[in-house]
Amino acid sequence: MRALEIPDPELASLVSEAAKLATDYWASLEARPAYPVTSGGETSRLFDRAWPDEGRGRAVLDDFSAIAEHVRPCTGRFFGYVAGSGEAVGAIGDFLASVLNQNSTSWRSAPAAIAIERVVVGWLAEAVGCGGFAGSLCGGGSTANLMGLAIARESLLPANEDGARPGIVYVSEQAHMSIAKAVSLLGLGRNNLRLISVDENFRLRTDALRDAIARDRDAGKTPLAIVASAGTVATGAIDPLRDLAEIAKMEGLWLHVDGAFGVMAALAVPEMFDGLSLADSIALDAHKWLYQPIDCSCLLYRERDAARNAFSHSGDYVKIFNQDPEEVFAFFEESIELTRRFRALKLWMSLQYHGRYAYREAIIRDLRHAQLLDNAVRAHPQLELLAPVPLSAVCFRHRIKNNEAILKRVIARGRVYLSNATIHGRFALRACFVNHRTTPQDVDEIIHEVIAAADELNA
Amino acid sequence: MRALEIPDPELASLVSEAAKLATDYWASLEARPAYPVTSGGETSRLFDRAWPDEGRGRAVLDDFSAIAEHVRPCTGRFFGYVAGSGEAVGAIGDFLASVLNQNSTSWRSAPAAIAIERVVVGWLAEAVGCGGFAGSLCGGGSTANLMGLAIARESLLPANEDGARPGIVYVSEQAHMSIAKAVSLLGLGRNNLRLISVDENFRLRTDALRDAIARDRDAGKTPLAIVASAGTVATGAIDPLRDLAEIAKMEGLWLHVDGAFGVMAALAVPEMFDGLSLADSIALDAHKWLYQPIDCSCLLYRERDAARNAFSHSGDYVKIFNQDPEEVFAFFEESIELTRRFRALKLWMSLQYHGRYAYREAIIRDLRHAQLLDNAVRAHPQLELLAPVPLSAVCFRHRIKNNEAILKRVIARGRVYLSNATIHGRFALRACFVNHRTTPQDVDEIIHEVIAAADELNA
Repeated sequence: MRALEIPDPELASLVSEAAKLATDYWASLEARPAYPVTSGGETSRLFDRAWPDEGRGRAVLDDFSAIAEHVRPCTGRFFGYVAGSGEAVGAIGDFLASVLNQNSTSWRSAPAAIAIERVVVGWLAEAVGCGGFAGSLCGGGSTANLMGLAIARESLLPANEDGARPGIVYVSEQAHMSIAKAVSLLGLGRNNLRLISVDENFRLRTDALRDAIARDRDAGKTPLAIVASAGTVATGAIDPLRDLAEIAKMEGLWLHVDGAFGVMAALAVPEMFDGLSLADSIALDAHKWLYQPIDCSCLLYRERDAARNAFSHSGDYVKIFNQDPEEVFAFFEESIELTRRFRALKLWMSLQYHGRYAYREAIIRDLRHAQLLDNAVRAHPQLELLAPVPLSAVCFRHRIKNNEAILKRVIARGRVYLSNATIHGRFALRACFVNHRTTPQDVDEIIHEVIAAADELNA
Repeated sequence: MRALEIPDPELASLVSEAAKLATDYWASLEARPAYPVTSGGETSRLFDRAWPDEGRGRAVLDDFSAIAEHVRPCTGRFFGYVAGSGEAVGAIGDFLASVLNQNSTSWRSAPAAIAIERVVVGWLAEAVGCGGFAGSLCGGGSTANLMGLAIARESLLPANEDGARPGIVYVSEQAHMSIAKAVSLLGLGRNNLRLISVDENFRLRTDALRDAIARDRDAGKTPLAIVASAGTVATGAIDPLRDLAEIAKMEGLWLHVDGAFGVMAALAVPEMFDGLSLADSIALDAHKWLYQPIDCSCLLYRERDAARNAFSHSGDYVKIFNQDPEEVFAFFEESIELTRRFRALKLWMSLQYHGRYAYREAIIRDLRHAQLLDNAVRAHPQLELLAPVPLSAVCFRHRIKNNEAILKRVIARGRVYLSNATIHGRFALRACFVNHRTTPQDVDEIIHEVIAAADELNA
């Protein structure tokens, strides 16, 4: 027997044991707490061990239940962050992707995987009203935003031989931290990010943006890009995309849309994303509002050549001897990744398994759940809504009690999980709905748990 | 039934169908060609379709066989690029990771997943003689190299408020293209990458490096980092790590080791990587020479604070209310990723299933296979070895026939797959061994197929 080889019958039995673990786990989800009872000491005690010299064999599967008990289960009652629910067919697709173990870097390396990724990227683009955009999958919104801004820079302000030239990036003060991180990583300089104020709906103020651009031009600086949020991570605000596209066009700037959280909702409520198709690049996360297992993000771009211009650094090593346009296609020419996981397979399987209508319906349900909570908060005398709810993030507070203490209690009670945000300097409880497992009853529990936690603080 | 919900029995049957597809596929590997008979037209015809409105249900599994027939199978006879073989327990781990759908960004988000990632990173560091290094998993060597150089820049030459300051990066002319891509992405300027000449073993020449650094200092430029290759993608050359570490120390430069291909071999032949533990950061790919399914790369770093300094841009959104050192731990503070797949689970399961000795043995077998081919090429009157074989990449040529034509024929014959390299300006056939399925008989087939292909060119 070769090292690392497993006889076929043993492998078959391993796979079916794992299959049973998976189905039992999914079936157990609703009975699990929204957050585990655990501690740093406990996870160290359980998992801090040396790599054994001799193999443990199938006993490694016995760890699964301890792992499952010490992670956050994707129940319908987990409302923290923007945490997608991990659709099961997507997980099966991920398994088969690992079985096939393709390197989705170029058609030559992985013919069907590349064809499928190109097709599913087309589905995503069309689903959000951007048919005709090119794009590629990547690991997360941070990477997609980084790539969008890298393409912007190389298109409009290419680094000269000695380094990056400073260019100003404009975002709302509600933008995700990944934008600042990208600006810093690209060497544009932390001072070259302009945080623009927002209106009462937490949308970027176009008048403030115009002023900021004019001030920078007057000061001899070079505006580079506008990053619009759709929606913001705290409140789900969608910046005025059409207005921003007009400003970008008039000023000769790149328009990147950070739609990691919200853009997939265009499948259900396209009217809320008016102007999206005028963007130059769009980041969206299929592991958020398309319920796919992590990781599955996508950067869409209007011009494939712009992405190539930013990322093509081929060596002999990957030289392709072929002229067929399908067969010379290489994602590594338009991505920061070279080796690339076959992420498209989960989308291919999951999106076709359920069909487009079911996805639209799931998103509509999430939007409805947010409205349910919005209404329930407003109807409750002890609670206060802190921001409008355009999409599915709801920020609210208890009017009297310490909300940070309430949040800790809510999480410790384990029935629902909320996260937090800062709204006008105030600590907000925050629930976000991007979860196909959530029911209206789960939404009701949020109010129940917050009030119960607040009451406990009395005691 | 909620949208996207699947009844438990239907899901159980889907999972067991997928399990059967997986085990049948693995069992079929040796019977498959090393490269499929396909074309761009064929993959478009098969897979170019619209996202259906109504779900196809379990019929999506029927696509698997067409996909499997139009991708490269990870047989023991695939020797192109640096293509790991996709160990089966790793694939099962990937499945369970997608079932759990954790966001491995911080302990708070995914307690057991974070504990396990910290442990397996420790295993990797220790396995390559760098016990005590911190690190994090990422998607590929390109990302790991990018992060290594980003940490270097922020440690030694932080971008000032207005942008990146130019710093010179030194690599051998044999370095992987991802280094140039990283330098460009970071805004350091394409002219600030110095390609240093190599010796007869394709190792970076330290005398040439010293001269280049001195010339840059004389010209008022600022040296920043040395990137050592271990090993190079073409020939597997390992730069003189200890000498480079001394130069880096004396000159105050960062030493990053691009060990995406080769560093894991330190588990088997540590003496070839003398000085590795003197590096500041090291990129290695567990999806190459640790046989894991794509994607699974790792960046190791001596100082966790240096990584934090480069990547920490936290917002309120992810503020952690906790003081326990395990519980405040956050990988997003030391990575370009925020959302992060639970990649550690496949390593956790696969490395423990087989044990450390089996992995060492598999690597030793790969090294032995390379020596077998090396010997066979030298023994064959029509073939010529083009470079020494320190690790497991073998570059050779037919002495008389057109080698590019031979390569095309070899691939079309479908029995083995080779890729190519350019060695001293000449087209080389290249075989690389990072595959636990390869047997000595498979190695013999390489010579047989190259000679048969060459003979066909006569006809």
